[in-house]
Amino acid sequence: MTASRIDGKAAGVAVRERVAKGVRAFEQRAGRPPGLATVLVGEDPASAVYVRSKNRATAEAGMASFAHNLPDTTSESELLQLVADLNADKRVDGILVQLPLPSHIDEKKVIATIEPSKDVDGFHAMNAGRLATGLDALVPCTPLGCLYLLKAELGDLSGLDAVVIGRSNIVGKPMAQLLLGENATVTIAHSRTRNLEEVVSRADIVVAAVGRPEMVRGHWIKPGATVIDVGINRLPTDDGKGRLVGDVAFDEAVEFARAITPVPGGVGPMTIAMLMRNTLVAAHRRAGLADPENL
Amino acid sequence: MTASRIDGKAAGVAVRERVAKGVRAFEQRAGRPPGLATVLVGEDPASAVYVRSKNRATAEAGMASFAHNLPDTTSESELLQLVADLNADKRVDGILVQLPLPSHIDEKKVIATIEPSKDVDGFHAMNAGRLATGLDALVPCTPLGCLYLLKAELGDLSGLDAVVIGRSNIVGKPMAQLLLGENATVTIAHSRTRNLEEVVSRADIVVAAVGRPEMVRGHWIKPGATVIDVGINRLPTDDGKGRLVGDVAFDEAVEFARAITPVPGGVGPMTIAMLMRNTLVAAHRRAGLADPENL
Repeated sequence: MTASRIDGKAAGVAVRERVAKGVRAFEQRAGRPPGLATVLVGEDPASAVYVRSKNRATAEAGMASFAHNLPDTTSESELLQLVADLNADKRVDGILVQLPLPSHIDEKKVIATIEPSKDVDGFHAMNAGRLATGLDALVPCTPLGCLYLLKAELGDLSGLDAVVIGRSNIVGKPMAQLLLGENATVTIAHSRTRNLEEVVSRADIVVAAVGRPEMVRGHWIKPGATVIDVGINRLPTDDGKGRLVGDVAFDEAVEFARAITPVPGGVGPMTIAMLMRNTLVAAHRRAGLADPENL
Repeated sequence: MTASRIDGKAAGVAVRERVAKGVRAFEQRAGRPPGLATVLVGEDPASAVYVRSKNRATAEAGMASFAHNLPDTTSESELLQLVADLNADKRVDGILVQLPLPSHIDEKKVIATIEPSKDVDGFHAMNAGRLATGLDALVPCTPLGCLYLLKAELGDLSGLDAVVIGRSNIVGKPMAQLLLGENATVTIAHSRTRNLEEVVSRADIVVAAVGRPEMVRGHWIKPGATVIDVGINRLPTDDGKGRLVGDVAFDEAVEFARAITPVPGGVGPMTIAMLMRNTLVAAHRRAGLADPENL
């Protein structure tokens, strides 16, 4: 058996096209485009790349993009003031503060200051709680993208055995909530799990989000399972460029899985597409409109 | 093997004695006792019994008890106004609105109106999210009581395989979060789970919270597992009085488990003890004091 590759790039493009359509419809009704504000503090090169690509995607979708790039000498109170200003700015539907922040700034305090209805990253406790209790929430982009790929591949997830490896607030825990919402039987495994191979071997759905290169071995995968690999790890190579690998040993896993996301080109492109989706959804809810359909 | 009975009644009494001590210490520091307000709408006899026993426990712990018993003709807006008044009342540290509410009142709206720092039931989305993201939260009383019993029985839960049957916002989902916080490997099973017997048979810890009498059979239990039975179901008897049973077939399960909670006398008494605990904790946090120790 050789697994099919789940093409996150194509899926992401499709979502972003639907979002762009939704943006035009929103603008006609609301008289303004949805707006996403990004906040970058400091000069971390990877963060700068991420933020630029988010700004570009925002503009491509026809949304207003407000980029705030601050020096790493920015104080916590200055940053909190900027967030408060963006909370009050009616043109801004989504606020994304790029993490990590410099160590002199308390990330938890910054996240807690973002108005939950504009928290398009879905990191605010209010959104985590709304997701956990089955209310309308803004859901973290990466697990939302994973769910989108799973439903596109499998359709109804009801009754399937799902294992989420990793329990971060950003991926693992909201992923478990989403799978539970789809009526899967969900197991959350992590670094303290004793028999990870056995746990994985029972699952129809495996979502790996641990950040350890190729930790999940191919023969662990139940034949016919669907594998979503959230990990992006850079391994050293002779030419110094490095090689990106996921948390799953891809070349082994393709022999067992029914379908699997490659790294890169799997989950990654979905994350930014879901950020666009969340911004469009936030704009609708803030304008008192029903959520856009077919996203 | 015959399981030991986990004595929730004795454990509950011990917690309430420690709470009473903490109440006296709080009163000395804060100049007032912690206060719990209960709100009962309508005449449901079971609800009335629950609320009275909560009022009694509050008084026994030395806390101020504010009982609001309203007719079932109370409008939603009247109830929301009462909650707003209690939010503003400095003597009140905890607000408990007894559920279910009459059908003309939107429970979600009422829960969302309770100030999260006074939400001693832990039902507000903000508390669910704080629990989910690892922040200080007020945690629903029943799963908190279950965790207390498990830790008293097993000590460190790290790496144990735990199965939670049921995914309600009140028990199942917060229970899973608590077990995850203790580093257990957690599976959430529910009505759509395909192979419940197999899922249960793998678990070192079984928490049953489905509300179906004796659904979990004894031979499903892994020998040596610890079983927490949250269910309270009344079976008809010839004398018309009925008989209380849990979600686990107790007489069978004692042959397999290491320890098991009886019904009644297991989880039930812990719930009210944890309500007292939550009220004392809320009082400390609202007064800017560190959480009381040894609760």
